[in-house]
Amino acid sequence: MPLTANKETLQQIDSLLEARRESALEELAQMCAIPSVAAKGEGLEPCAELVAERMRARGLEARLLPVEGGPPVVFGEAAAERSDAPTILFYNHYDVQPAEPLELWDTPPFTLTRRDGKLFARGADDDKGHVVSRLLALEAIQEANGGKYPFHVKFLVEGEEEVGSPHLGPFVEKHRDLLSADACIWETGGQDEHGAPWLFCGMRGIAYFELSVKTIAYDAHSGVGGSILPNAAWRLVWALASLKDRNERVLLPGHYDKVREPSTRDLELLDKLPGDEDYLRKEFLLPGGQFLGGGQTTGLEFKRRALFEPTLTICGLDSGWQGKGAKTVLPSEAKAKMDFRLVPDQDPDEVHRALRSYLDAQGFTDIEINYLGGQRPARVDTEHPLVRLAAETAEQAYGKPAAIIPMVGGSGPMWWFTGFLGIPVTSPGISYPGVRVHAPNENIRINDFAQGTRHLAYLLARIHEAVHPA
Amino acid sequence: MPLTANKETLQQIDSLLEARRESALEELAQMCAIPSVAAKGEGLEPCAELVAERMRARGLEARLLPVEGGPPVVFGEAAAERSDAPTILFYNHYDVQPAEPLELWDTPPFTLTRRDGKLFARGADDDKGHVVSRLLALEAIQEANGGKYPFHVKFLVEGEEEVGSPHLGPFVEKHRDLLSADACIWETGGQDEHGAPWLFCGMRGIAYFELSVKTIAYDAHSGVGGSILPNAAWRLVWALASLKDRNERVLLPGHYDKVREPSTRDLELLDKLPGDEDYLRKEFLLPGGQFLGGGQTTGLEFKRRALFEPTLTICGLDSGWQGKGAKTVLPSEAKAKMDFRLVPDQDPDEVHRALRSYLDAQGFTDIEINYLGGQRPARVDTEHPLVRLAAETAEQAYGKPAAIIPMVGGSGPMWWFTGFLGIPVTSPGISYPGVRVHAPNENIRINDFAQGTRHLAYLLARIHEAVHPA
Repeated sequence: MPLTANKETLQQIDSLLEARRESALEELAQMCAIPSVAAKGEGLEPCAELVAERMRARGLEARLLPVEGGPPVVFGEAAAERSDAPTILFYNHYDVQPAEPLELWDTPPFTLTRRDGKLFARGADDDKGHVVSRLLALEAIQEANGGKYPFHVKFLVEGEEEVGSPHLGPFVEKHRDLLSADACIWETGGQDEHGAPWLFCGMRGIAYFELSVKTIAYDAHSGVGGSILPNAAWRLVWALASLKDRNERVLLPGHYDKVREPSTRDLELLDKLPGDEDYLRKEFLLPGGQFLGGGQTTGLEFKRRALFEPTLTICGLDSGWQGKGAKTVLPSEAKAKMDFRLVPDQDPDEVHRALRSYLDAQGFTDIEINYLGGQRPARVDTEHPLVRLAAETAEQAYGKPAAIIPMVGGSGPMWWFTGFLGIPVTSPGISYPGVRVHAPNENIRINDFAQGTRHLAYLLARIHEAVHPA
Repeated sequence: MPLTANKETLQQIDSLLEARRESALEELAQMCAIPSVAAKGEGLEPCAELVAERMRARGLEARLLPVEGGPPVVFGEAAAERSDAPTILFYNHYDVQPAEPLELWDTPPFTLTRRDGKLFARGADDDKGHVVSRLLALEAIQEANGGKYPFHVKFLVEGEEEVGSPHLGPFVEKHRDLLSADACIWETGGQDEHGAPWLFCGMRGIAYFELSVKTIAYDAHSGVGGSILPNAAWRLVWALASLKDRNERVLLPGHYDKVREPSTRDLELLDKLPGDEDYLRKEFLLPGGQFLGGGQTTGLEFKRRALFEPTLTICGLDSGWQGKGAKTVLPSEAKAKMDFRLVPDQDPDEVHRALRSYLDAQGFTDIEINYLGGQRPARVDTEHPLVRLAAETAEQAYGKPAAIIPMVGGSGPMWWFTGFLGIPVTSPGISYPGVRVHAPNENIRINDFAQGTRHLAYLLARIHEAVHPA
């Protein structure tokens, strides 16, 4: 029997969340104390065990599923009271970014520290804070429903999100049936600088490459080799310059063929958003500087460009002499890192193939491509009942209307859920703009933890209104 | 009265050189014991003092002339027996390259160490070995001439050659009269891998630049800024790609206008040289690799291209993330180091101006240019009597015909002597191909020191045949 989300039920949920909050934050402290840094391969299994144990405390059957080439996935399940109830899949991760540079932390990064209504630690937000928020919301729902879940619970917590989820795709492919569900709660979400909750309905894809070229056995003297020996730095510069023109147009043939333009509804939603044009101007532009697009890009067009345009970013260049002063060296090797951000319906594997073909066709067969990882772009219908319910319950929880964001600029493994598994996704969460995610002094505000968890619990209490078993 | 360079005189010179060689090498050991590293600004004045003292031991009046912004120039002079004798100017330097990486030295870099007929130390060849060779030759000539010099001696030893002689030009301009002379003995020279002495009659010029660009206040996340924020790495790549096409053609307007083609005589001389095509192929080319010019460049054309073509070499690239794996960063700054090698009659200052104008015209006003130093290209007439005499005496000293090299690929401050002062220059010396100049285990062969010094003494004994007071 679905939960009846009347005023009394919501009050009961509120009371439960408040009563259990401190003990949940104690669980968060335990989780943050394990430095489960995926990039270093450290602390992953112990953290996975702890997450599984915390799931079991909420009546989930939890196990560690092996992942070929990576740390295990924690997978928890619980059956609903009624078998015809919908199934809700939670996606989170237990790994964190490295804490370095350590000297920039005001308190030890792996000790959850309370200060000024905030909690500081690596993972306090991303993503252990969200894991605990999900668990607390589930606990409240279960209790408010008389100790039984009103929906089937599936809870996937992976251990490699911070290194690009390299094994999540094959895992999802392998466990397609196990992961089937009717809705997915994404691993993060939160509010903007005005305290308005936001819900995003898409993530750009990404294809990350390292280009490298070696032209001669070792670095030569530029006076000897300048007109005789092939220079790796020049090869790289010419190859890169062939990939994107000065108007930011990516030159791979067919690169824009699959680009789906934003819908009228997408543009309406974008137009309503405050956007971060002013913030980016203040933070990044130098005196006299301007945004790409010749300074003409502003308002809705700014937001459209920022979120719905494919990009190609050089992330790094490395060759030859980089020290002080002059060294007359002709470099034997050169490297570039770069990422393509992709919009629906571009495909990172297609970009990989197109990149190789294009460089070959341009005469750059000497440029080696190392494909460091890709994610497909993902979209959720902004009109989906799940999104509408998430917005409605957000307004209940926050007392402010929710912003529906059709797409965010960043990337993640969302397509495996929206695209491959075909599940609608939404994103309640505990973040705020000052969260310093991936940076020193990562933190959450305790009040945001409460509000975000309440939003999730309200959404879960009524989720049967929006999603139905297939 | 000029010295009569008959058989007896040459035998006397030989005896003197042999008798004094060990004590000269002891002087070399003292000089090498002072780590006069220009790049670090260390040990320069003490080394200058020692050189002046060693000049005085040969009857030169020596003093340290101040150099604005740099270490002093050691300047020694001695008048000839007859005032109408020619004036011979020696150009050398007392500074050395840094010894690093120290762990690659088999013996301490600043302790002259004898092993297998060789002497190892930083500066053993470049240029302290040459300084001592010049002093020993002068000593022998003076003694063979009855204690008096048969020509006026001017001896300039600077302290910044290894950092591009940044203050030598202004110094020469300021002391134009003091430095007037009829011939100049260059700071280095030697023999090829077949033991044939070589004499070079030109050096390419150079213009070294650091390009840098800063587009935003700090590095941004590529997912946020990719299509909005200007990327420093892209700006740099596009600017560099605009400077040279894939056929190695420098695209600065007028860059080739002043290029003087090699003369028929230059090409004849080049054709006779063994050249380093095979050496460069063996050392540098990768399996299946080829030289620039599509693998068609060989023989005389190879030599012409290597020495008489202007070049533009990227020496280094530096931007953003260069570590392992993926980092989705949009770099705020990017830098490149690059050198133009110039042939007669190109001018590095003109290149500097053309570079700024061209980048501006291409829309790259944001690219900053730091001009790290320039040298003009220099030529000596390969038929000049000084060169012919140097070749003739080289054959006497080495027992092998000398190779006359119209131009070398490297650069140095030669134009100030050939061009500004208008003095013919030639290059006897003690080097050999295994000298490891600028590298760990720099060394000379004691036999080369003897042969090179004998060549210089023979040349000096007869130099009045080739040059005459203006």
